[in-house]
Amino acid sequence: MNGPGSRADRVARVALSWLAEPGHRVVWTLVQQAGAPAVLDRLLAGDIPDRSLRTTVAARAKAGDARQVAEVQLDQAERLGARLVVPADPEWPARVDSLAALELDTGGRINTDTRPPLCFWVRGGLPLGATLDRSVAVVGARASTEYGEHVTLGIAAGLAERGWTVVSGGAFGIDAAAHRGALAVAGATVAVLACGVERPYPASNALLFDRIVEQGLLISEWPLGSEPLRHRFLIRNRVIAAATAGTVVVEAAARSGATQTMSRVLALDRPAMVVPGPVTSAMSVGCHGLLRSHPATRLVTSAADVLEEVGRIGEYLEPPPRGPERTRDRLDEESALILEAFPRRGTVTPEVLAAEARLDLRTVLRRLSLLETAGLVVRTEAGITLARRGG
Amino acid sequence: MNGPGSRADRVARVALSWLAEPGHRVVWTLVQQAGAPAVLDRLLAGDIPDRSLRTTVAARAKAGDARQVAEVQLDQAERLGARLVVPADPEWPARVDSLAALELDTGGRINTDTRPPLCFWVRGGLPLGATLDRSVAVVGARASTEYGEHVTLGIAAGLAERGWTVVSGGAFGIDAAAHRGALAVAGATVAVLACGVERPYPASNALLFDRIVEQGLLISEWPLGSEPLRHRFLIRNRVIAAATAGTVVVEAAARSGATQTMSRVLALDRPAMVVPGPVTSAMSVGCHGLLRSHPATRLVTSAADVLEEVGRIGEYLEPPPRGPERTRDRLDEESALILEAFPRRGTVTPEVLAAEARLDLRTVLRRLSLLETAGLVVRTEAGITLARRGG
Repeated sequence: MNGPGSRADRVARVALSWLAEPGHRVVWTLVQQAGAPAVLDRLLAGDIPDRSLRTTVAARAKAGDARQVAEVQLDQAERLGARLVVPADPEWPARVDSLAALELDTGGRINTDTRPPLCFWVRGGLPLGATLDRSVAVVGARASTEYGEHVTLGIAAGLAERGWTVVSGGAFGIDAAAHRGALAVAGATVAVLACGVERPYPASNALLFDRIVEQGLLISEWPLGSEPLRHRFLIRNRVIAAATAGTVVVEAAARSGATQTMSRVLALDRPAMVVPGPVTSAMSVGCHGLLRSHPATRLVTSAADVLEEVGRIGEYLEPPPRGPERTRDRLDEESALILEAFPRRGTVTPEVLAAEARLDLRTVLRRLSLLETAGLVVRTEAGITLARRGG
Repeated sequence: MNGPGSRADRVARVALSWLAEPGHRVVWTLVQQAGAPAVLDRLLAGDIPDRSLRTTVAARAKAGDARQVAEVQLDQAERLGARLVVPADPEWPARVDSLAALELDTGGRINTDTRPPLCFWVRGGLPLGATLDRSVAVVGARASTEYGEHVTLGIAAGLAERGWTVVSGGAFGIDAAAHRGALAVAGATVAVLACGVERPYPASNALLFDRIVEQGLLISEWPLGSEPLRHRFLIRNRVIAAATAGTVVVEAAARSGATQTMSRVLALDRPAMVVPGPVTSAMSVGCHGLLRSHPATRLVTSAADVLEEVGRIGEYLEPPPRGPERTRDRLDEESALILEAFPRRGTVTPEVLAAEARLDLRTVLRRLSLLETAGLVVRTEAGITLARRGG
């Protein structure tokens, strides 16, 4: 069988990612039209409309048989505890497909080849799609300051405490601090790499990567053994922007990788958030530049600010779950009405709550799942009941 | 004679400022309709439409004869080297009259009584109006940090170096640093007080106030001898907002005087600029709050940023005049084209420049005056020539 998710589909997607860099506009478009296996056949036969792609594929094909390379990769991955995730898989992170429509004003290969990934290599036990569903990217400078790391740790920990996944690259500085902040509160964190997942770069972050595999995910579009070439970080950045509900830049020098990521976030119309810093700090120049030059960027100072911004794009309750009192104080009006409609004791049905709160049933159901997530109500077999307040 | 600018007009305006606090909506409106002397007559006769104003005037009138108090004030002022400036005077700062149309969303006396001043008491040799024409307010917390003072000094000095007047209150912290920054580069600075100009508050800033009188201006709407009562600072803030081309807040705690000033700046539709700081600093909480809650506020990090914002409300060239090299580097495209069109030696006409630079004559003429102001070109009787570069 050749269909989506089949062995042939997987092999072809790996082979195509090896023949041309991920995000390639022509390759991705052809795959959408004809499916990966057919496109691989075509490329290997030299039947390639795009001249530069033809040159790239020809050069790469000299290094080996693309199909065989892919087969070996899939076997290797199994031994290493890595897996391949393709769009047909249930754990595919749907949000990255928004890259299909990404158009940037600026030119150049890196800004043109921004199409969705063909596949992800994944290490770690969590399901990729569900983990990225409620995720925020926290990125910034490698040469960060103590201030930047301190703020990053706080924001990442705050997001993780509220059940959000932190996403970042694998670099020193802000990236590493973002993962550490999430790990510190036993939260989920995802490192998006620009090299093979079996040998994450930089090597001196090895202990951190081990912890990420245990508690979160290491992911990459590049085949095992791929080197972290400079341009790959720039290709990778589009995934960080597209896989998350919003992106926070903590420290960034002028014209840095983080500001490049932000250009994708802005083009995708996702919340583009920036942490300010001392105007005397070179590592905040890029941040202040973003805030000054893009009206759509939003200044944030804390995890609560971040979730307020992310909440604007969809249904989201913004409660720091420190205690029932504080959580209730921050409820939106509908949720508060629903909580008031609960009987003091015993269970109740959503229908009764809707009638009591004078809200429609759909709103009640939607709010109830959020209230349940926030730990304020409990679903039992007998019905829904208020959570018992902590002492 | 009773007309605007007459002795009777001056006496009446001083007396009215003594009977009711400056900015009083009813008093100002009556003065606009009937003139200050007639309104003073009416108020002293008890013929007052507004009940609360009637009570205020009656209470104050017990303390003395308003007209006599005013006469004494004017004599006193002469001895102290202070002068009264009224709207009929050539040096009246016209911009403050925009307060006539200021309407704030929030209630309360302080937010209602925001009408223009009836008069200003002034100490210092500079003409008030011309000094405030090109002015920017730089305000912030009394309990400032070293960071805030450092940034304030830099911004104020940068503004003064470019020929702009700095305006602030007379408080410790950011206000004092703003004046010091301007004074340090022999620039003009104006302190807007909420008490009598003969005894500026706080007394421990006395040396600073002396330097301001020498090099800039101390001004106040309140009669000599007025105490710096708490509510007067809030009344005063509307003048800081209205007298300047824009306002910069450097450090501010949540819900501070500086954020109150900013509400007036925003309502007046003037550039509302905010310097960010570490998100870990309590003294930047108000700043970040302003940037988050008001889309019209703009983040600024330097004097150049400030002038870019202020320049948006009018034609303004943004050159830090440190040296011809740097100035030229920052030129806009049209100005750069014009400079390139100059012959190496000798003079040229605007018409020739327009032809060479492929710009229309009107643009060339407009840019030329700016280039002349910036010291890059010189007009002689023979024509226009490039300024000789400094060594």
